[in-house]
Amino acid sequence: MAKEKEFVKEITPQGEDFSKWYIEVITKAQLMDYSPVRGCIVFRPDGFELWEACQRELDQRFKATGHRNAYFPLFIPESFFEKEKEHIEGFNPELPWVTQVGDDKLEERLAVRPTSETIIGHMYSQWIQSYRDLPLLLNQWANVVRWEKRTLPFIRTSEFLWQEGHTAHATAQEAQEETLRMLDVYTEFMEEVLSVPVIRGQKTPSEKFPGAVATYSIEAMMRDGKAIQAGTSHNLGQNFASSFKIEFLDKDNERKLAYTTSWGMSTRILGALIMVHGDDRGLQLPPRIAPTQMMVIPIGPAKMREHVVPAAHELVATLRQVGYRVGIDDREDVSPGWKFNEYEMRGIPLRIELGPRDLAADQVVVVRRDTGEKILVPVQELVERVRELLDVIQRSLFDRARAFREEHSSPVETMEALQERVREARGFALAGWCGDEACEAAVKEQTGATSRNIPFDPPVHQKTCVHCQKPATHTVWFGRAY
Amino acid sequence: MAKEKEFVKEITPQGEDFSKWYIEVITKAQLMDYSPVRGCIVFRPDGFELWEACQRELDQRFKATGHRNAYFPLFIPESFFEKEKEHIEGFNPELPWVTQVGDDKLEERLAVRPTSETIIGHMYSQWIQSYRDLPLLLNQWANVVRWEKRTLPFIRTSEFLWQEGHTAHATAQEAQEETLRMLDVYTEFMEEVLSVPVIRGQKTPSEKFPGAVATYSIEAMMRDGKAIQAGTSHNLGQNFASSFKIEFLDKDNERKLAYTTSWGMSTRILGALIMVHGDDRGLQLPPRIAPTQMMVIPIGPAKMREHVVPAAHELVATLRQVGYRVGIDDREDVSPGWKFNEYEMRGIPLRIELGPRDLAADQVVVVRRDTGEKILVPVQELVERVRELLDVIQRSLFDRARAFREEHSSPVETMEALQERVREARGFALAGWCGDEACEAAVKEQTGATSRNIPFDPPVHQKTCVHCQKPATHTVWFGRAY
Repeated sequence: MAKEKEFVKEITPQGEDFSKWYIEVITKAQLMDYSPVRGCIVFRPDGFELWEACQRELDQRFKATGHRNAYFPLFIPESFFEKEKEHIEGFNPELPWVTQVGDDKLEERLAVRPTSETIIGHMYSQWIQSYRDLPLLLNQWANVVRWEKRTLPFIRTSEFLWQEGHTAHATAQEAQEETLRMLDVYTEFMEEVLSVPVIRGQKTPSEKFPGAVATYSIEAMMRDGKAIQAGTSHNLGQNFASSFKIEFLDKDNERKLAYTTSWGMSTRILGALIMVHGDDRGLQLPPRIAPTQMMVIPIGPAKMREHVVPAAHELVATLRQVGYRVGIDDREDVSPGWKFNEYEMRGIPLRIELGPRDLAADQVVVVRRDTGEKILVPVQELVERVRELLDVIQRSLFDRARAFREEHSSPVETMEALQERVREARGFALAGWCGDEACEAAVKEQTGATSRNIPFDPPVHQKTCVHCQKPATHTVWFGRAY
Repeated sequence: MAKEKEFVKEITPQGEDFSKWYIEVITKAQLMDYSPVRGCIVFRPDGFELWEACQRELDQRFKATGHRNAYFPLFIPESFFEKEKEHIEGFNPELPWVTQVGDDKLEERLAVRPTSETIIGHMYSQWIQSYRDLPLLLNQWANVVRWEKRTLPFIRTSEFLWQEGHTAHATAQEAQEETLRMLDVYTEFMEEVLSVPVIRGQKTPSEKFPGAVATYSIEAMMRDGKAIQAGTSHNLGQNFASSFKIEFLDKDNERKLAYTTSWGMSTRILGALIMVHGDDRGLQLPPRIAPTQMMVIPIGPAKMREHVVPAAHELVATLRQVGYRVGIDDREDVSPGWKFNEYEMRGIPLRIELGPRDLAADQVVVVRRDTGEKILVPVQELVERVRELLDVIQRSLFDRARAFREEHSSPVETMEALQERVREARGFALAGWCGDEACEAAVKEQTGATSRNIPFDPPVHQKTCVHCQKPATHTVWFGRAY
């Protein structure tokens, strides 16, 4: 027991210093490491495996909604950025420039892509000639670079991994439908697979993507009450189509500009996953995304190992055969207590203990990571009970996260209440807004909170602007953000 | 028939101009497009899908041999390259340098990675402390950049996609075993999945990877007799471990340098796949890698469509249910002849035709892409016959490629014979070599052929050097290479 306590003590409690807790957990769980390149991290195998699982889930949803993958160049010529003024202004300070190759200076500087609307827009203008070429529905899995001043592993890194969908449509309505369809796909993935509840809504003009007509986002609350924008979907209208001449001959024989969209989700969702579910013992992974859903651990005195260990391996084989992702730790030189802590810290949803007495009784002890509950399960019922338990954990992680968000969210009418909500009480404030960017900027300056989004379904509609007290045109979620 | 001929005529025959044939086929099949960035291509969905299929097959083999995926930064600080002299000399002329971000000059230039031994070596030096940390077996799927002077889609592009395995071991023997194990994995993938026969062997010192102790390669012959190096596996000895201080405390309590390996396969294998199997009608894809293994095409007069089309969809459902990748083209505004040509050009292994008479007789016509053979198959036997046919095609593409390679390979004793073999007769020459780099360089200068590799199992052992006629220490395959 001494060892267990000692081990747990090594992680700073969330309530003491959330940032420290986060860094300690992702380091100890070997999800990442710092790299010698400023703001860039290394995704270690356990971290990358989580991203691979997210990729699989998202990729199959993109394909099911008619999208195909493609790959476009990493480098974007400087002149391309200049075709879309708002876009270049938004990204310019963060762009790394390749200016020479070997010892030769390049004639035109090349940016390392921060996002690919421009180069994809250029290609689309060549591929799209007729209404028959529309809609064009592509997605790219890629690395992108934005040289951020403040970085934080997974959440905001200079280089990150993401997918970026880029679509072109014949009508404004189709583009808008696509924009919202992909927000739906993101929502379903976050809530059903990652068990992370999100708030869906539209970004205010000051927070939208540079070059977009409208940006929609899903926002999640971390356990320190701060927000993470988990995914965005942009209706680009005809802005990029006009800059890059994406034109088509329509059925009525008229040449028209296409309407485009883009939408992206990045490795920052790993940060959200960790900060939404983790607790003072470490990570907590929802069963649907966990690379290992359960660990089997044989226990008991050394002389019983020859009986217990083979039986444990049999359990593993049985569970794997029905499709579970199961690990086993039968090492002799590490105590069961150490193992329990280790796999709890790594967030594995279930632990299955098998000792000599269990073996004799034809049962196992199943321990839930989320509640610590220990359940005696007859071996012949194990497959079925495990299925139920994983479903229950998947759901209860979601419920816990949603309850936390609700406890830490409230409507506010005044700047004082907003300040109190987002700072002292750490959470989201739902406030009225008159639509004036000056009021939004004042909130940010005075409270540190930014508008998260204008939710589609706010719990209440606010009547007056939280800053100027004039009539509100929108009800907005405000929160401090990562 | 007029239309079919016209269509076929559009592709330049291989015998007339192989390079032109290649570019026409990959463009028409929409595998790629040129990008506005010098030497970089766009992977269009049909091309990227081929790469995704290769990735799946390789990834599962890497995991089965104990490797895990990770991800390291795109950028490599200039100082890292300088730690391995041979390495920087090899890559320097091809390196794109990021020198500024936004308007700010960087203190240290960052190279866009051409390969990741240096930055991974740096991380390994931190992760590896004890013999217990070994072997460390990681793989990375990534984009890399080498600013090549002459570029050719897939085969040699400034940016390309690849995987790079990086492993560290306690002993020289383990590192050598790993190096050869991965060459075996590559070989099995190329021969069994892509039906591309390869020659396995060791690179001569002048052709090895900059910084390696030994480089092994697999080499394939294209249908113009030229070589493509399809994959390489490097034993890096203690070179990188020494430069990056990858040290560990061994069981005997001594600090030792690790031994490392690296191995890579890139999107150039798509070029090999196309150039090995394609013919004057277009692509030919081996069934195991083909994203679509068969196309079902309903035929017959318009008035019969209401009977034939639903029956065709039923066939598709039946075939998909047993796991085949099946497409259907039931468009009315395109003739069957056009479709036949289109899917032949795209290299789909089987075509299944269903017309009113077939429907009445409860049969279909199955047409092989490779031989053009038409086979009447009763519907109830279709699943089984398709399985056999796909296996036969998979095998016969391999046999055809191997027979072609054998016809275009021969042992040579003189420079004249070597010149004749690699130029006029277009192929590979097996020659003796004394081990002197000057003789190897003379062959290259006089014939344009480079040493491909020193094969593990040459059909004959040559006794004298093809250039200086002194005793040969090695028997080497020479060929002109892409």
